[in-house]
Amino acid sequence: MTATLITGIVELVTNDPARGDGSPLGIVRDAAVVADENTVLWVGPETEAPAADRRVALGGCAVVPGFVDPHTHLVFAGDRSNEFTARMAGERYDGGGIASTVSATRAASDDELRRHMVARATEARRQGTTTLEIKSGYGLTVTDEVRLLRIARGITDETTFLGAHVVPADADRDEYVRLVSGAMLDACAPHARWIDVFCEPGSAHAFDGDEARTILRAGRAAGLDLRVHGNQLGPGPGVQLAVELGAASVDHCTHLDDADVDALAGGDTVATLLPGAEFSTRSPYPDARGLLDAGATVALATDCNPGTSFTSSMPFVIALAVREMGMTPAEALWAATAGAAAALRRADIGRIAPGARADLAVLAAPSFIHLAYRPGVPLARVLDLAERA
Amino acid sequence: MTATLITGIVELVTNDPARGDGSPLGIVRDAAVVADENTVLWVGPETEAPAADRRVALGGCAVVPGFVDPHTHLVFAGDRSNEFTARMAGERYDGGGIASTVSATRAASDDELRRHMVARATEARRQGTTTLEIKSGYGLTVTDEVRLLRIARGITDETTFLGAHVVPADADRDEYVRLVSGAMLDACAPHARWIDVFCEPGSAHAFDGDEARTILRAGRAAGLDLRVHGNQLGPGPGVQLAVELGAASVDHCTHLDDADVDALAGGDTVATLLPGAEFSTRSPYPDARGLLDAGATVALATDCNPGTSFTSSMPFVIALAVREMGMTPAEALWAATAGAAAALRRADIGRIAPGARADLAVLAAPSFIHLAYRPGVPLARVLDLAERA
Repeated sequence: MTATLITGIVELVTNDPARGDGSPLGIVRDAAVVADENTVLWVGPETEAPAADRRVALGGCAVVPGFVDPHTHLVFAGDRSNEFTARMAGERYDGGGIASTVSATRAASDDELRRHMVARATEARRQGTTTLEIKSGYGLTVTDEVRLLRIARGITDETTFLGAHVVPADADRDEYVRLVSGAMLDACAPHARWIDVFCEPGSAHAFDGDEARTILRAGRAAGLDLRVHGNQLGPGPGVQLAVELGAASVDHCTHLDDADVDALAGGDTVATLLPGAEFSTRSPYPDARGLLDAGATVALATDCNPGTSFTSSMPFVIALAVREMGMTPAEALWAATAGAAAALRRADIGRIAPGARADLAVLAAPSFIHLAYRPGVPLARVLDLAERA
Repeated sequence: MTATLITGIVELVTNDPARGDGSPLGIVRDAAVVADENTVLWVGPETEAPAADRRVALGGCAVVPGFVDPHTHLVFAGDRSNEFTARMAGERYDGGGIASTVSATRAASDDELRRHMVARATEARRQGTTTLEIKSGYGLTVTDEVRLLRIARGITDETTFLGAHVVPADADRDEYVRLVSGAMLDACAPHARWIDVFCEPGSAHAFDGDEARTILRAGRAAGLDLRVHGNQLGPGPGVQLAVELGAASVDHCTHLDDADVDALAGGDTVATLLPGAEFSTRSPYPDARGLLDAGATVALATDCNPGTSFTSSMPFVIALAVREMGMTPAEALWAATAGAAAALRRADIGRIAPGARADLAVLAAPSFIHLAYRPGVPLARVLDLAERA
């Protein structure tokens, strides 16, 4: 292990409220960090920095915790850009939706899926993302769901079994729910940390509250922790079910009533918002402001997928959160780092403090505010300490 | 001169409707291009490509004309991120607005201004922009306006004298209009191609129709071509004045009535839309769809400036145009290339055809549609033929 002293940080966001300005972001001005390849060792004012084996001078940048993206669907094949074009024009387009991605994914080789996934993960990293959750859900057979999770596990520990993405077109509903909570779960559990269900009673292909409960309980019994896709397309039981079952996160939260907001404010379940999906489907955005004001914990994620949100950019999501959901730049950054870490129940990421992982994003800007102030501009890069060894 | 054969282009957007699919984008599939460092020499199907001195194989990318950004304010100093944060929170913020940028810019050295400008231009180029218009307008004295234009001229021929950006706080209105159309114009004209006026009668600091007409006529008499900031904050005479005087472009066009749309449809003036400004000020977007349906020529630009739109990303602007202004991905790309070239009255850029400048943007994607389908993702890069020599 080699300790590196990182200097020239005009603004360091630690997400440690005990430090610096005492805000939730724990901002230290004119800061330095000492880290080895894996772990942060020291954080403080540059004038008090200890010696280290070597030094990296950033020359006046802001540094923030590497972005944590707690909701992606990175393992798939196929392209749905024509579906996007038709949707934007308000036209009907029967290209098959998710089913077309399922077909293309099943037909793709492991190598092809891995190559696409790694390209997308590399793209995310080039924009400052250091932790990615990845879901299955485009296989929908025992063999293919296992295959997608094995491939995802090649680049992240945060793998999520989403056999309950949709009911396949040719499947019997009840039988499919039994398969997902039975043989498919048994085969997938060794390759996953999480189980997730697309709970949306208004959608013919998704799962209602009872089905979701059955699947999530089976998942927990198989040793998986819980996440839920809830209340995206309309009101529903997803949010309250997630809180009741102690899921780490309920994602989308676009259509909430007061009881849903109260449940989130009173529980341990993070509300993960995915405004990239509303951007790319031209839908109304979730009310982040209302959730924050009620006291809920909010995370942000890309929802990177080929149908409804094909962005890998956490900075873009931050800009949308500020423009469209009433979050302050500070709340949005916190939600994309510490909040997203909470949505994965991780204490070792999403902050810059001794003992945390050495995941640092350097911004070509003097302040994190620029992530929202400069929308669309690729400002963030991951500081690669190993590469500098 | 060395001729390079560029192959592996799965989708080539030429903006030449006589080619390929016959659409306005003139798309050629499985195409090749031959170009020297400056000029496109040949365009066609890869199977018919002639020999060249060397070859660059792109391996399956889309290629589009380099983006033309016909409206930027790149030469300035200072930071207004706190003003942005306050505006997003709906709070009043009296940090001085444009006046604060004027103060910071006047106080900055030539070297500092040049360094910031080059950094922003480099950032734009990294996102596929090959032509930038740059305005003065943060000097507002004879000396400082000349200084900004000289600095801008260092990196572009498309310089615009915008002494009529705002009336300085300490100036007498009528005297300032006389200065801008007199001594300041005389000093600036040798360093500019264009003259521009912020025509917005509802704003205390901008210029009304009569003032704008005086300034624009003086500019034309001094040999400059005309551009106008019009109808951004409310209805006004800017659009009709621009068409009447034969301006190349009227920019913003956010608040138009039927007569404005008719004037644009019937004249030679391009409507340049700047949705980054509406994004960053949380304002309603212009009606691009209505303009296109009426037959107007539409261009897109970033309006890159520290107050209302600090983005340098044409791909971001394209994504907004599709999401927020009802443009198709094809219309948005055309507006960001050929339309933007028309807004600068240039025939040598914004298209890929023999004789045009060798300005090619390579996309890490199989189709230009991905520019809108994948918002926030840095997909575009400029193909640097000189570097490969």
